[in-house]
Amino acid sequence: MKTFEQVAPLLEGQAIEVPSWAYGNSGTRFKVFGTPGTPRTVEEKIADAAAVNRFTGLSPSVALHIPWDKVDDYDKLRRFAEDLGIRLGTINSNTFQDDDYKLGALTHTDAKIRQKAIDHHFECIDVMGATGSRDLKIWLAEGTNYPGQGDMRGRQDRLAESLRTIYDRLGDDQRLVLEYKFFEPAFYHTDVPDWGTSYVQVAALGEKAMVCLDTGHHAPGTNIEFIVAQLLRLGKLGSFDFNSRFYADDDLIVGSADPFQLFRILFECVRGGALEPGSEVAFMLDQCHNIEKKIPGQIRSVLNVQEMTARALLVDRDALTRAQEDGDVLVANELFMDAFYTDVRPHLAAWREERGLPADPMRAFLASGYQEQIEADRVGGTQAGWN
Amino acid sequence: MKTFEQVAPLLEGQAIEVPSWAYGNSGTRFKVFGTPGTPRTVEEKIADAAAVNRFTGLSPSVALHIPWDKVDDYDKLRRFAEDLGIRLGTINSNTFQDDDYKLGALTHTDAKIRQKAIDHHFECIDVMGATGSRDLKIWLAEGTNYPGQGDMRGRQDRLAESLRTIYDRLGDDQRLVLEYKFFEPAFYHTDVPDWGTSYVQVAALGEKAMVCLDTGHHAPGTNIEFIVAQLLRLGKLGSFDFNSRFYADDDLIVGSADPFQLFRILFECVRGGALEPGSEVAFMLDQCHNIEKKIPGQIRSVLNVQEMTARALLVDRDALTRAQEDGDVLVANELFMDAFYTDVRPHLAAWREERGLPADPMRAFLASGYQEQIEADRVGGTQAGWN
Amino acid sequence: MKTFEQVAPLLEGQAIEVPSWAYGNSGTRFKVFGTPGTPRTVEEKIADAAAVNRFTGLSPSVALHIPWDKVDDYDKLRRFAEDLGIRLGTINSNTFQDDDYKLGALTHTDAKIRQKAIDHHFECIDVMGATGSRDLKIWLAEGTNYPGQGDMRGRQDRLAESLRTIYDRLGDDQRLVLEYKFFEPAFYHTDVPDWGTSYVQVAALGEKAMVCLDTGHHAPGTNIEFIVAQLLRLGKLGSFDFNSRFYADDDLIVGSADPFQLFRILFECVRGGALEPGSEVAFMLDQCHNIEKKIPGQIRSVLNVQEMTARALLVDRDALTRAQEDGDVLVANELFMDAFYTDVRPHLAAWREERGLPADPMRAFLASGYQEQIEADRVGGTQAGWN
Amino acid sequence: MKTFEQVAPLLEGQAIEVPSWAYGNSGTRFKVFGTPGTPRTVEEKIADAAAVNRFTGLSPSVALHIPWDKVDDYDKLRRFAEDLGIRLGTINSNTFQDDDYKLGALTHTDAKIRQKAIDHHFECIDVMGATGSRDLKIWLAEGTNYPGQGDMRGRQDRLAESLRTIYDRLGDDQRLVLEYKFFEPAFYHTDVPDWGTSYVQVAALGEKAMVCLDTGHHAPGTNIEFIVAQLLRLGKLGSFDFNSRFYADDDLIVGSADPFQLFRILFECVRGGALEPGSEVAFMLDQCHNIEKKIPGQIRSVLNVQEMTARALLVDRDALTRAQEDGDVLVANELFMDAFYTDVRPHLAAWREERGLPADPMRAFLASGYQEQIEADRVGGTQAGWN
Repeated sequence: MKTFEQVAPLLEGQAIEVPSWAYGNSGTRFKVFGTPGTPRTVEEKIADAAAVNRFTGLSPSVALHIPWDKVDDYDKLRRFAEDLGIRLGTINSNTFQDDDYKLGALTHTDAKIRQKAIDHHFECIDVMGATGSRDLKIWLAEGTNYPGQGDMRGRQDRLAESLRTIYDRLGDDQRLVLEYKFFEPAFYHTDVPDWGTSYVQVAALGEKAMVCLDTGHHAPGTNIEFIVAQLLRLGKLGSFDFNSRFYADDDLIVGSADPFQLFRILFECVRGGALEPGSEVAFMLDQCHNIEKKIPGQIRSVLNVQEMTARALLVDRDALTRAQEDGDVLVANELFMDAFYTDVRPHLAAWREERGLPADPMRAFLASGYQEQIEADRVGGTQAGWN
Repeated sequence: MKTFEQVAPLLEGQAIEVPSWAYGNSGTRFKVFGTPGTPRTVEEKIADAAAVNRFTGLSPSVALHIPWDKVDDYDKLRRFAEDLGIRLGTINSNTFQDDDYKLGALTHTDAKIRQKAIDHHFECIDVMGATGSRDLKIWLAEGTNYPGQGDMRGRQDRLAESLRTIYDRLGDDQRLVLEYKFFEPAFYHTDVPDWGTSYVQVAALGEKAMVCLDTGHHAPGTNIEFIVAQLLRLGKLGSFDFNSRFYADDDLIVGSADPFQLFRILFECVRGGALEPGSEVAFMLDQCHNIEKKIPGQIRSVLNVQEMTARALLVDRDALTRAQEDGDVLVANELFMDAFYTDVRPHLAAWREERGLPADPMRAFLASGYQEQIEADRVGGTQAGWN
Repeated sequence: MKTFEQVAPLLEGQAIEVPSWAYGNSGTRFKVFGTPGTPRTVEEKIADAAAVNRFTGLSPSVALHIPWDKVDDYDKLRRFAEDLGIRLGTINSNTFQDDDYKLGALTHTDAKIRQKAIDHHFECIDVMGATGSRDLKIWLAEGTNYPGQGDMRGRQDRLAESLRTIYDRLGDDQRLVLEYKFFEPAFYHTDVPDWGTSYVQVAALGEKAMVCLDTGHHAPGTNIEFIVAQLLRLGKLGSFDFNSRFYADDDLIVGSADPFQLFRILFECVRGGALEPGSEVAFMLDQCHNIEKKIPGQIRSVLNVQEMTARALLVDRDALTRAQEDGDVLVANELFMDAFYTDVRPHLAAWREERGLPADPMRAFLASGYQEQIEADRVGGTQAGWN
Repeated sequence: MKTFEQVAPLLEGQAIEVPSWAYGNSGTRFKVFGTPGTPRTVEEKIADAAAVNRFTGLSPSVALHIPWDKVDDYDKLRRFAEDLGIRLGTINSNTFQDDDYKLGALTHTDAKIRQKAIDHHFECIDVMGATGSRDLKIWLAEGTNYPGQGDMRGRQDRLAESLRTIYDRLGDDQRLVLEYKFFEPAFYHTDVPDWGTSYVQVAALGEKAMVCLDTGHHAPGTNIEFIVAQLLRLGKLGSFDFNSRFYADDDLIVGSADPFQLFRILFECVRGGALEPGSEVAFMLDQCHNIEKKIPGQIRSVLNVQEMTARALLVDRDALTRAQEDGDVLVANELFMDAFYTDVRPHLAAWREERGLPADPMRAFLASGYQEQIEADRVGGTQAGWN
């Protein structure tokens, strides 16, 4: 196994983008519980995201969602974020909350509705220009609930056409990342249900189109790290939406449901060069803190990614390759598990302190008074949520 | 195979309770779409339920949900329903939408919160007295999202204690039915996740406590008809919540995702005597019409149950038993499938007409002007939903 | 809905290839039960396959598996089949039963073992020349059982290289079809686990390489008909391996577990032109008759495919398109279900009789004495199985 | 968190029974690969089991399977085992490999076949008398493959009757443990598919009948630790069959697929007293080493259980209870995860050395020459497998 010292340099550049909406309220269809201190404005969300970065050094940018984070002056918003030490990141579009989109948006049979959805993405690209964002992320919440309701193949063709129109509007340094999802909110078919569909759609568009892999968007039992390896091999892994799940798209704290799976995913990132300087794979969170406090929930999340990255880096890949070539199943597995079972937390605490960060970001945050302050300050107004 | 004439008498008494909330708006965590004509009041919901019964003759009662359907005068509400030709049925409690219940209700560590949840059920039992309802249905939306968050075993013990207190308040002719659910809204553990847990809890209470089986609340691949057979064998199948699903608790129209599964479930009902006069198994719908029109959605649903019941009754059980005893796998399966593949719709149309019902309830409803009328009438106010 | 007469012409050309190994014994890892009359030789398997065709008119060809069906003189075998009225069809390779392949074959780290596996495919291509077969089917049973055991990405690269070598050996009129499978016999990762992987591998090869879709090889809940639609859209659906399943790769009689799913799959075939003259999609069975009699099991299977094809053809696609464009969810679904619920069996019986086939192939087979004859004849020797 | 010193005493008595069949060959339905050194006799299996105990101190007993391990003189076999330092443990019956049992055994419609299966269990009870075994383990491999094939409810009744007859033959100090399994080898329904069914069957029998929980026998997504907690609460958890799985009943090395799940299961054991002196919960392995070497595979397995037990014991349950009662989701989860993430391996190495065991049992085994010796010795004969 490698030593922590050997792998520490690769941790230097690690950046995990946080989503603005994680700081607002979220829940299930049964209930959205509110919590004291929840942001009322996009600025307050950004302030919370900046707090996460301040205590962890891991989240230098925050993703925005349009229209949830719509403002009049994005340039001002960008400066607001920069003053707090973070950047504005990925712009997420939304084609699932307008009444017109009830039966589809980019795939709709009605050309006028498709154009409306395309125009929304044009607006997002405009926002990207103002915010300096590289990525336009499209999660396609489209599909049908009943067999026969829609023509799956026609919808796929219309999707290709709509995406082409959006893609052609991208600037030279901008990218489109297309997220796939197994099910929900549609329950019979989803228009982009799997990595294969996202891949064929983005491959048809061109080099600036990539796949977004949300770790909660797969069928039960899916080997996610295989998909990571495959997309890296194909040069089409654009970004991660990290979270974790026991059943469906539970959107729990990344690493909380199956830490070993997170380890395996990050190992394939290491194997495929996704952590190296120059890699264009974006690491993001996409989670819901339905019952736990949001800022600590985000701190825990970025720390989990960092800890598992460190463990994944510890694997002695040369020895592993030898064991694999020897066909020694148990030794290869043991070399792999050794890294997973190694407790990197003390090393990371020391490493943080060397960098002027708190050894224990969670305790430091709780002791900082930040939470108490926002609970006192953020009284009145409407707490932000998914709207 | 039996003839339709042979089995028709068993269809006479079939009753499928409809839920008041199916007529209100529902959706996913991402969006609840509204539709014109949606009820604003419990009376309007009951009127819609009565319309379903008028066109199908299949839904003589409507389930209420407290507090969604709370009124000052339940006796008046009962008369309102009776004037429209239907009864008030099962009373459903709700311990998932109050802020106090964020981390539990009947299982909460705090005795005050448990008592509040118990008191809510006492209120429901009072309502049952006024509405003449037999069943108190408890869907326990409790659980935890993160390992370690709660003590699963302690929660089970507290649940037993809370249920005992509620059970002891039941009248002689009242029942408690306990619904189980695999996951959602909790994502790590659910306090009543499976039939086994519901069974051991209600078996500990006594004869008036039964299991409620919601067809959408199981793990992928679960053989639901086996559970039906087992609960009937144990004398503990209290009621069905019918709906259908492809993935999770999709709450689609019953029979729309896997009609053959519905057939198999109803065959076990036939096999176990659940359709015979005197059976105390309650058949109910529990669905969400997120994108389709609600009243036609309900009409389709009760018709689907009726059609599959007729098919299930057609099975020649004597011949089937012989084939099973002969070990003739293919003939037994063929006898079973023959009934499923038989198109009973023309027979049912004629049968309906003999009873003064429209041959095609769906067309009759669409032609009746009811939908247009409610869309015109129900303007303004707040459309009913899950609140 | 269309009439049976309107759709009957499209049934004329329907051909469902049967696998030679379905007539031999198969089972689970726990036990392979034998049955009287099971073939001992490839000729006896072919005779049984020909019997299925004689009674149904649906299975004009039989797939072979190398080495299970290895003979010295394939030309003679071809004439043997032709004399019985059927053709030799797809050649299936086997890289999962040689000790050398324990940890991989086309993906193995050892170049010598890869070459051995490639040579086996060369041999299969030679067989294809002699049998006049068009398709080489590769089910890649490779993968790993433990994380770290193999380098998933390196295996993918080696697979690409091995397939290229095999592909280049194909004749002008020959094809390679690559089957994917979610899991089993490997339990941690499978080298071709999903349609996406099969697609990217065959797309890299060229026009003669296609995807094979086995209906039992998906994750729980996968919408298989979506994949059918997508592969047809991409021009890469080479063939089907039909069977059905409740849980994993159960290899039950096609249509027995979820007939509605089979209907939906065949509807997408209709929609995508896979049933039209000139379509190059091959329809095959790949099943195990562990406990039921094999020849009747195969007869039931091809009849199920035919019946569901007829139902799928009945859908009034013009009316369906209108309902879809109107956004009428319930009417669209109803048009779809109407066809599914229509009992085509009497029509098909009459249609068969017009063609000189028995109205009821199953009864005709049982009455024919064929089964009794083979049980009397096939005494001694070693019953064929998966070896 | 507790210290290792605090929890070490509870590790003293830990015993994990190993199955004799783990040392023989096993595989999938596609292929059983052999390995050099595989036992040919039950004595050689016991010798291998004893080797695992010698290097780990964790497996003082070995389970037998009848008829695979049938011998003429069980008393002699017992002494053979005792001379090697281990005991003979659970006796496993087999009602899935005789041709008579193709369609059922204890559930068969034919009373003669049921009696044959009952007699087999009587024989097993006789063996238990001779071996001094406490537990008769019944894994019921029965079920059906096709809807309609069998009468699920009648089978359940016959099962109850058969089990009663077997139960009544048990001695005062003997137990019957009934294993449940989701699917395989039957694919439509399994007669004991879930813990609920096993529970109601054994509860009807009496105090000496208990549930056996095999960690690989659940539906996807099942929260297994909940079942552990529930069965301990009900006083009906008789034994564990440990292994791990990604998809179905993969029978991989316990802890290899989801170590965190194993931790959670063992935590509920701690919580429920299953590790305390006097607990009657039996811990066993039930695994297949299809591709890896068997003895090291077993060593790795018992070590994994021990390591996760140590981690589970480290949880500061008082602090956890406080956090749970405070409703502090994140702190409760953190306390739980802290124990999981703690590397106990150095502590366990030291602890082993204190007890005269090798610090690293795996390295010690590999260095011992045992494997080389058996490979040299065990030449000729028939390697043991599942027959």
